[in-house]
Amino acid sequence: MADYHKMWEELGMDVETHDQLCEVLPQAFGDVYLSQENRPEGMDYYNFVVAEIHGVRPAELIEHQKKGGKVFGTFCVYVPDEVVFAADAIATGLCGGSQFWVPGGEKVLPTNTCPLIKASVGARLDRTCPFFRIADMYVGETTCDGKKKAWEILAEDVPVHVMDLPQMKRKKDVKAWADEIRTFRKVVEEMTGNQVTAESLHSAIVLINNKRRALSRLYDLRKNEKLPISGKDVLLISQIAFYDDPARFTEMTNKLCDELEQRVKDGVSVFPAGTKRIMLTGTPLAIPNWKLHNLVETSGGAVVCEEMCTGTRYFERLVDEAEGTVDEQIDHLAERYMGINCACFTPNSARIDDILRLAKEYKVDGVIDVNLKFCSLYDTEGYHVERALKEAGIPVLGIETDYTDSDSQQLRTRISAFIEMLNS
Amino acid sequence: MADYHKMWEELGMDVETHDQLCEVLPQAFGDVYLSQENRPEGMDYYNFVVAEIHGVRPAELIEHQKKGGKVFGTFCVYVPDEVVFAADAIATGLCGGSQFWVPGGEKVLPTNTCPLIKASVGARLDRTCPFFRIADMYVGETTCDGKKKAWEILAEDVPVHVMDLPQMKRKKDVKAWADEIRTFRKVVEEMTGNQVTAESLHSAIVLINNKRRALSRLYDLRKNEKLPISGKDVLLISQIAFYDDPARFTEMTNKLCDELEQRVKDGVSVFPAGTKRIMLTGTPLAIPNWKLHNLVETSGGAVVCEEMCTGTRYFERLVDEAEGTVDEQIDHLAERYMGINCACFTPNSARIDDILRLAKEYKVDGVIDVNLKFCSLYDTEGYHVERALKEAGIPVLGIETDYTDSDSQQLRTRISAFIEMLNS
Ligand code: SF4
Ligand code: SF4
Ligand code: SF4
Ligand code: SF4
Repeated sequence: MADYHKMWEELGMDVETHDQLCEVLPQAFGDVYLSQENRPEGMDYYNFVVAEIHGVRPAELIEHQKKGGKVFGTFCVYVPDEVVFAADAIATGLCGGSQFWVPGGEKVLPTNTCPLIKASVGARLDRTCPFFRIADMYVGETTCDGKKKAWEILAEDVPVHVMDLPQMKRKKDVKAWADEIRTFRKVVEEMTGNQVTAESLHSAIVLINNKRRALSRLYDLRKNEKLPISGKDVLLISQIAFYDDPARFTEMTNKLCDELEQRVKDGVSVFPAGTKRIMLTGTPLAIPNWKLHNLVETSGGAVVCEEMCTGTRYFERLVDEAEGTVDEQIDHLAERYMGINCACFTPNSARIDDILRLAKEYKVDGVIDVNLKFCSLYDTEGYHVERALKEAGIPVLGIETDYTDSDSQQLRTRISAFIEMLNS
Repeated sequence: MADYHKMWEELGMDVETHDQLCEVLPQAFGDVYLSQENRPEGMDYYNFVVAEIHGVRPAELIEHQKKGGKVFGTFCVYVPDEVVFAADAIATGLCGGSQFWVPGGEKVLPTNTCPLIKASVGARLDRTCPFFRIADMYVGETTCDGKKKAWEILAEDVPVHVMDLPQMKRKKDVKAWADEIRTFRKVVEEMTGNQVTAESLHSAIVLINNKRRALSRLYDLRKNEKLPISGKDVLLISQIAFYDDPARFTEMTNKLCDELEQRVKDGVSVFPAGTKRIMLTGTPLAIPNWKLHNLVETSGGAVVCEEMCTGTRYFERLVDEAEGTVDEQIDHLAERYMGINCACFTPNSARIDDILRLAKEYKVDGVIDVNLKFCSLYDTEGYHVERALKEAGIPVLGIETDYTDSDSQQLRTRISAFIEMLNS
């Protein structure tokens, strides 16, 4: 691994503390990932990306900035990356997925805040993540209570633009979201000094759609009875999708899919026949949160689908690629994005439809409904999700967890018992 | 006290369980309220209202329904009662303030939900509050995560109309709220079969403004060095304002104010000279949540102001009373309501300005920043509130509590120590 200490210092990072993170991550990654048997060769790329996660990609972003480009950090799959790329800027996900950052967040946020928010705020304020240092502007949204208020705290340390996501999904709300995207366009244009043109926006839409197509292709491969790839490998890819250069990511993911398609033809599976097929639903699993996938896949199950923002909510449905004015294309963006079904909307019954559909498409044996501790939205919606699954005859296990390891044993017991039950 | 069992049975209530509530409330009220010395005579009216809280007013609402009128139940000070009264219907607050209802809410909601929401859902689903039975329609709003999702659960049991409150306060958001009020008007008109006319809306605006004027007059009296009324008495009045007939409430409150003005002239105070003046800020205190006021006022302090929805956020600023079309008047409603500064908005810096202004106006010695457990919004905003107060040199104590009594001793210790510190 190259030495990035100079770069980190120039970013104003707390290099000493960050070194602690650098020490534990490879070990964790090795334990969870490299121990798997018969991994596809195409995973080498993603292994490399993770191994160099605070090095290679940050260096690319800095290179882009040196040439006058801007970087926007985002926290939610409703924020349209297309607008950013259309202005020759780069969008990068910023959600924190490690307990390492949580105590930093707790210095300013209530303990009763979801770990994703605490980790994200901690990563910024403690200066222990290069991505959080690099981003010229953070793009927030009004999705949940914790994030709504966290922006105000972050805004004291870094420029934050907040997009007001409607809380319902009527026609006028889609229009309101289009309006927010128009405002965002102006903010991006001002920040970058570049224009979003009909051509550049169209190219960006195709660019991001291609990423969606690649992910969709990857997920389709998990619908096979014989699974050519593990759930945790796909989770890793989904997480990297938020950070990586979109064109390269698409290329590498399609290359991996070529290999996986060959595996399907050859009847190769990374799991023994009869391994129970598990879908996870719920709150996002930000990198490096691999806890649940690891538990499931070391307890006799296989994760075949994630109805999550690090999962199907990220890539399902394409933006209309019809050429047209910027305004028309923004309407298409609003249409596509408002079709995501996050628990932050009321009502959100289309998410139940999604879950039942996905359970069928991925031939799921059981569902684990995952809630990040203190996420009221998904926790409360779980009442309807779990009821609907039971009514459909699909076994469901509801679990709540955070980023610590303290509940691992208890979770393993519950998940094992659940898979045991599916086997009997 | 009259016997309302027949009425409660006809409302489909769980009368047996409700009887348990009826048994404990008078005792609690007696302990907290009737033990006070030198109370204004005008409090007799509010004592009566509380004593008969599940009888007299519910009977009036039922009477109104028998004549074909409708009743709308609300949960937030952003919902404009004026529209309801303009259609010859009645609006009534429904927020639950007792631990009695919490376990019922916990049957369907996560434990990590604020007690106000749990109590409100429990009161409905357990059928132990006449108001929750009587309301023909509930009016929800998209203020916080817990409420957003609770509407979906309640809507399975009672008609719920949800208003999409914008999450920011730009010009277009005020317009969007006016739009939501227009939709609400139609819903109310359909539900009642009555038209909201320019005349009826104007009368309703004056009706509710008069209630605000009376409350404002009452609160002004607390700005005197000699306090003619206790904080807990004013809290009770603020709570009753959500339930009572507005015209009668206004009349009785003005009558009380006449008496209090005389007290001020006579130099009467219900507290010894030098009692420290405390302002409470934060989450609402729904009836019968009197815990904190009681603790403060039995620990050597006097509550002189509540920067709360059961307090200044309810009555400050009037709706423009200019006559005009319904549409113009709805714009005035939106203006006034969007001027309320709830932590559900981002940013919400105007609330800090309010708090600093109120601290001055009410000659406050110290502030207690109150958070209902699991309210992320106010909890997180507390970071800025408490910092601003400290910067202004105003001592502040942050506390978090719920509806149980289990933390009373601990709270008493902390509140006593805080007041002690102010005295030294
Ligand atoms: S869970 Fe909802 S708020 Fe969170 S990233 Fe996904 S869409 Fe955004
Ligand atoms: S998991 Fe829930 S609480 Fe956490 S950021 Fe996402 S929506 Fe908000
Ligand atoms: S605290 Fe906010 S959400 Fe709650 S009643 Fe008040 S204005 Fe409404
Ligand atoms: S106190 Fe907070 S969590 Fe509870 S209902 Fe009000 S805004 Fe929502």
